Amino acid sequence: MNKLAVVAFGGNALLRSGQKGTISEQEANVFETCSHLVDLIRSGYDIVIGHGNGPQVGNVLLQHEGGEKVFGVPKMPIDIAVAETQGSIGYMIEQQLRNVLYKADLERDIITIVTQVLVDKDDPAFKNPTKPIGPYYTLEEANKIALENGSVFKEDPRGRGWRKVVASPRPVRINNRKSIEKLARDGQIVVAVGGGGIPVYYRDSQKLEGIDAVIDKDLASSMLASQIRADEFYILTDISKVFINFNTPEQIALDRITVKEAKQLLSDGQFTEGSMAPKIRAAIEFVENGGKRCIITQAEDLGKPNAGTRIVLN
Amino acid sequence: MNKLAVVAFGGNALLRSGQKGTISEQEANVFETCSHLVDLIRSGYDIVIGHGNGPQVGNVLLQHEGGEKVFGVPKMPIDIAVAETQGSIGYMIEQQLRNVLYKADLERDIITIVTQVLVDKDDPAFKNPTKPIGPYYTLEEANKIALENGSVFKEDPRGRGWRKVVASPRPVRINNRKSIEKLARDGQIVVAVGGGGIPVYYRDSQKLEGIDAVIDKDLASSMLASQIRADEFYILTDISKVFINFNTPEQIALDRITVKEAKQLLSDGQFTEGSMAPKIRAAIEFVENGGKRCIITQAEDLGKPNAGTRIVLN
Repeated sequence: MNKLAVVAFGGNALLRSGQKGTISEQEANVFETCSHLVDLIRSGYDIVIGHGNGPQVGNVLLQHEGGEKVFGVPKMPIDIAVAETQGSIGYMIEQQLRNVLYKADLERDIITIVTQVLVDKDDPAFKNPTKPIGPYYTLEEANKIALENGSVFKEDPRGRGWRKVVASPRPVRINNRKSIEKLARDGQIVVAVGGGGIPVYYRDSQKLEGIDAVIDKDLASSMLASQIRADEFYILTDISKVFINFNTPEQIALDRITVKEAKQLLSDGQFTEGSMAPKIRAAIEFVENGGKRCIITQAEDLGKPNAGTRIVLN
Repeated sequence: MNKLAVVAFGGNALLRSGQKGTISEQEANVFETCSHLVDLIRSGYDIVIGHGNGPQVGNVLLQHEGGEKVFGVPKMPIDIAVAETQGSIGYMIEQQLRNVLYKADLERDIITIVTQVLVDKDDPAFKNPTKPIGPYYTLEEANKIALENGSVFKEDPRGRGWRKVVASPRPVRINNRKSIEKLARDGQIVVAVGGGGIPVYYRDSQKLEGIDAVIDKDLASSMLASQIRADEFYILTDISKVFINFNTPEQIALDRITVKEAKQLLSDGQFTEGSMAPKIRAAIEFVENGGKRCIITQAEDLGKPNAGTRIVLN
């Protein structure tokens, strides 16, 4: 049986810092990121691709806001916005990867799944929403929306206004995981669980509903990787390796760390929250759930010997 | 082997006339439409669902416009807008169908595929774009955009301004059709080819790219139904049967017509362009390509004996 790898694309797979996010920028970025998968594909890996959607879902929420202001189009909730980005980003990845495969003379089919991810309404994250999302409002506007639908707002530390904050609950179950595994094992490259998945829950234990939340995309990809029994889990980011004492004269690149070491470094505060820390946690979970190794690296290094930082059990 | 049916949801599966398109309206409509699939599912059919996206893609294009005007978010092209609606509408259908199945105590999994559909750049439709889409502009604004990117605009007959018109080319190939067939044959209910599919073509015979176009959703569902060798093709609309002499004192509901009769009625001008005519053409193509029967009816009548109008070979 081929090795099965889940590859989580980072934000810069689609958008580089300083870019506005035009379609041609995003397509060029995606093409380049996908081109680095060729070595893995040539080595015969079965592959599932997860991806983030931070800047894109932010833009979609601004578009919802602008559409309502200018044309009176009813705004849609966050779960719908995430679904929209799964459509658009999934499409871009599939299309550019098809172009990459054509150029590399590789014949593999690609399929993109709109993925719902179940979360628990009683997840403590819902008591303390922290993830800022969407447009900035004046205090008055924010209060009005909060009264209307119970949204929670926090003031932006850089003074740009008030912004809705949503919970980032743990993923509980990835829908379609068995189909994703079967399709990947059948040789298809599967794009799934985009943006961490569309967050849904069971209201009154029976009615499936969307919920205002954002699921961490590395955690969701990690859970998917475990559930489909992937051998390897790649987390792509914008640096070649994980560092300790990052951005100090003592910074050291890590080649290989055990789960135990990773946990120690986490509790030592070596990794930034909202950046490397969630990736390390996602890596730990994958390995603790039976995965062979998680590799955190940049797309350019995929397929190179000794690429990135490996997180392993022992 | 179970019977395999492709069911093309009509526009009113999601949005009823007079509604604004809020999320709760759309969810309630989708739930109701999906509830009428229960009889087919209980009878053991394998099912693929196609759907339109007319009002939704219109709203997304207004949101793109509003997002740029108010927040400077770069506008996205039509293929991306279609992809976004495949995400959002596919998600809504999958979610509400899951709720329907739960209530009916039926265990079937559902999977939603982001579907690209290949069109031919030399399709004559591109020489004469006719499908109005997106916001209304003043003549001045329209001329400016036309100069920027070559878009074609036409004046709205009701005087609301100038509107972009795009081609409605024939679908040439449905991506992922083999996976869609396999998943459906494996018992999954598959949602695919939403909005007629994301229109793509090969630039210089090698680079896959999106293109400004809208593919007729019934024609795309018909082609998918033929390519996956579906036994039956259901086109859901807002009337119980196809009528001749429609809206006259002599109107007659049709129970069953042959392909030959359908062609004759088409050339007699019995069916309105942009409404029933494309459905009849999609039905004819399905039957001519080997499908057993196409049934045009309303969702409420699914599973009823003698429901709708059957288009058959002889």
